[in-house]
Amino acid sequence: MNKLWNHSALFTDFYSFTMAQGYWKNRMNRRAVFEMFFRRQPFEGGFAVFAGLGTLLEQLEDFSFSPEAIAYLRSLGVFEEPFLHYLEDFRFTGSLWALDEGTVIFPQEILVRIEGKLIECQIIEGMLLNTINFQSLVATKTSRVVLASGQGAIMEFGLRRAQGFDGAMSASRAAFIGGAVGTSNVLAGKEFGIPVMGTMAHSWVMAHKSEEEAFQAYADLYPTHPVFLIDTYDTLKSGAPNAIKVGKRLAAEGRTFGVRLDSGDIHYLAVEVRKLFDAEGLKEATIAVSNDLDEAIIQTLTDKGAPINSWGVGTQMVTGGTEAAFTGVYKLTAREDDEGKLVPVMKRSDNPDKTTNPGVKQVWRIKDSQGMAVADVLSIDDPVNPDRIVPGGQYVLWHTTGDYRHFTHTVDGSAEPLLKPRMEGGRSLGPGPSLEAIRGLVRSELTSFDGSYKRLLNPHVYKVSITERLRTLKLFLLSDYGFFSR
Amino acid sequence: MNKLWNHSALFTDFYSFTMAQGYWKNRMNRRAVFEMFFRRQPFEGGFAVFAGLGTLLEQLEDFSFSPEAIAYLRSLGVFEEPFLHYLEDFRFTGSLWALDEGTVIFPQEILVRIEGKLIECQIIEGMLLNTINFQSLVATKTSRVVLASGQGAIMEFGLRRAQGFDGAMSASRAAFIGGAVGTSNVLAGKEFGIPVMGTMAHSWVMAHKSEEEAFQAYADLYPTHPVFLIDTYDTLKSGAPNAIKVGKRLAAEGRTFGVRLDSGDIHYLAVEVRKLFDAEGLKEATIAVSNDLDEAIIQTLTDKGAPINSWGVGTQMVTGGTEAAFTGVYKLTAREDDEGKLVPVMKRSDNPDKTTNPGVKQVWRIKDSQGMAVADVLSIDDPVNPDRIVPGGQYVLWHTTGDYRHFTHTVDGSAEPLLKPRMEGGRSLGPGPSLEAIRGLVRSELTSFDGSYKRLLNPHVYKVSITERLRTLKLFLLSDYGFFSR
Repeated sequence: MNKLWNHSALFTDFYSFTMAQGYWKNRMNRRAVFEMFFRRQPFEGGFAVFAGLGTLLEQLEDFSFSPEAIAYLRSLGVFEEPFLHYLEDFRFTGSLWALDEGTVIFPQEILVRIEGKLIECQIIEGMLLNTINFQSLVATKTSRVVLASGQGAIMEFGLRRAQGFDGAMSASRAAFIGGAVGTSNVLAGKEFGIPVMGTMAHSWVMAHKSEEEAFQAYADLYPTHPVFLIDTYDTLKSGAPNAIKVGKRLAAEGRTFGVRLDSGDIHYLAVEVRKLFDAEGLKEATIAVSNDLDEAIIQTLTDKGAPINSWGVGTQMVTGGTEAAFTGVYKLTAREDDEGKLVPVMKRSDNPDKTTNPGVKQVWRIKDSQGMAVADVLSIDDPVNPDRIVPGGQYVLWHTTGDYRHFTHTVDGSAEPLLKPRMEGGRSLGPGPSLEAIRGLVRSELTSFDGSYKRLLNPHVYKVSITERLRTLKLFLLSDYGFFSR
Repeated sequence: MNKLWNHSALFTDFYSFTMAQGYWKNRMNRRAVFEMFFRRQPFEGGFAVFAGLGTLLEQLEDFSFSPEAIAYLRSLGVFEEPFLHYLEDFRFTGSLWALDEGTVIFPQEILVRIEGKLIECQIIEGMLLNTINFQSLVATKTSRVVLASGQGAIMEFGLRRAQGFDGAMSASRAAFIGGAVGTSNVLAGKEFGIPVMGTMAHSWVMAHKSEEEAFQAYADLYPTHPVFLIDTYDTLKSGAPNAIKVGKRLAAEGRTFGVRLDSGDIHYLAVEVRKLFDAEGLKEATIAVSNDLDEAIIQTLTDKGAPINSWGVGTQMVTGGTEAAFTGVYKLTAREDDEGKLVPVMKRSDNPDKTTNPGVKQVWRIKDSQGMAVADVLSIDDPVNPDRIVPGGQYVLWHTTGDYRHFTHTVDGSAEPLLKPRMEGGRSLGPGPSLEAIRGLVRSELTSFDGSYKRLLNPHVYKVSITERLRTLKLFLLSDYGFFSR
């Protein structure tokens, strides 16, 4: 699937190159650790879904500069020949740790941790953020849509209003991870093995002499449960009666059919169409709906018991709708000092929520004895003097801002480290899980969180804390920041 | 630039293929006309900008099926061999009319008109809508941002939170068209010839022993107006004083510098930093700002006279922010009948605003004697019996819904047809304009619209009307729709 992905290392913010040249010229290309995390839940929700890791690993292995790319950089007139020569052989040769793709995630948690030469870490920043931010946005949105729909199947129909070619392709991948049952995008079906699905367009109806003829022609072509679009002329006066005429002929042959509603008041029309079908004994006829749906509209319809079997969801799901970006950032958290040791660093800033957690970190998920998630904890990932969370242990856990808020918790269930190695020396550590497996993980992950965290509106805030040791380091660096600035 | 674009005709909604097989088997693959238009202005604005045409034409010329694509379609088990064989040689061989890329556009206007075999028109639908919808969204958003900023330069910094790879690439193209002066995306710089720009990241500051050292090192490397990011530790207590220390050394050498603010209260900090600089005689020091800006924030800052020279705008501009999709649709408006004549068709639907305007149409822009736009008009594009708007003529122009609203207008300036042929027999009619030229068109187009249409909030609604003849056709088909549905 090479042609689909981006392998050009020019897919990078310009400042990464100007900084990289500085590191290179000033012999500062030492080891560094960068961590990607996000600052707030999208859609005012209580959780998000981590997606895009498989794509990221594929891209990262091949991220390099073609001769044309080097020639372009040369043409800008700001890069010196020895630096350009260095870029000719550029590869990411570091290590990458990440959560399992499909993990349910919360603000401040490390999603991806990169350790490598400073320049390599810097040049991959834009591509890394672009990939994880977008797929996590869509996987999160889709899982909300799936939760709202209850049992009804969600079909992803986003291609035509997605944000460009990859806005559709990556969205199809992420929507499937988030729980969609299939996509209308045939290329995504081919590249990712996602089931492809669809019904008919208004143009099919309009291209025939009559609506009934259009439905019959479709049923003749596609015998297995054809779905008729019934709003081209008038849903209740024309579309539904014509669907019934054709549907009764199908029923006589032991076949079933469905209809799709794409305009008007979906709830009213679904109820009326269901009545018409039931009155004719067409109990197996299904009703699919579409028309700019999102999780809020779907929840309203399902709460009121609208008789809907499946949902075609497009624009709102593949773009995020009212919130079109996931707020992931990528920050330096440690750098090699003159003695070759990794020392923690942090960004202070004027916005308290933009102050980062310093050092190389791990993320732990604590569960109770019933297997339900209780809290996630960031610790210092120190191989020499481990800062671990173990079952049975009692811990004082602090708010991530480092302020006075804290609680004491005894781990009566499990505590698992969530960040795992995925890449070593720039090479992927084995093939990742299938999309089906990632999709399954999202489903099982969500069952381990109480319903209050999954409410669409005004959800309970899940606890993400830092260990006492990480808090101590943070307070020390905060008190000491003057060292860096004066 | 081939590798950047999508050429796989599998980038299509599944239903296009099932319908296409139906047209093919039932010998319905006759001539048809589809038109793309949109239904409402994005961002509650008064205008939009048409973008993406250049990309569309490139993609359309090469839109075809690889042997792997055919094999995938075969594997789905719903397509018959003769139809698959037909797809092997599939090309778009029809004609395409469109507005000039960069035209200021309004709801109901035809943006792109396709005439070709029904199957070809259907298979290109998804790709066409995907391309035009996204670039028009971003060009529109960017032109709003540019209007809000007044004279300050807009730099597009959207790569890291754009919707996937092409969400960044196509957005960089469209943002430049909409008036951005450059992009941070180096690959977009190479592929589209857009100026690339950027400053420094927090990691640059954190990778040095002190903030002052970080600024000095950068200034040593990049002598021409280096821009220092001053919010890593504390904007006013640390960043600005360090920028001044380094800046005074630069000033002594006759050099200038700038700073970037990326957090905190932008207005307050810009005013305070400006004061500090001016007090030190650093009048030429510039202030750039970033941090999730959009047109509303920028307008607030410029209205209050914040001393800001340039704006780094990312996420909100390349994704649309609160509104992530442009609502373009693609509808059948005429089809060949049994006698080989093109007959107008329309979609009625339960939502009045989803009822389409029938027939093959042209778009006219009427201007007054001062060259200011007065109204746009949709007419029937009938070569035999033209439905034209000419200077000096007096016309009764009707609301596009076909209801009673109308006005009489005498054209005292100009009247120009906006749809022009771009493709004939599936081949592009000559190279399109450069991005610079398209960008220039947006700028000049906007000057021909009164300021009231360009207000960000609650703008005046520009008139889009239909000719008397088109209204008559529409009313006839509305009264006659029962013919199709019964």
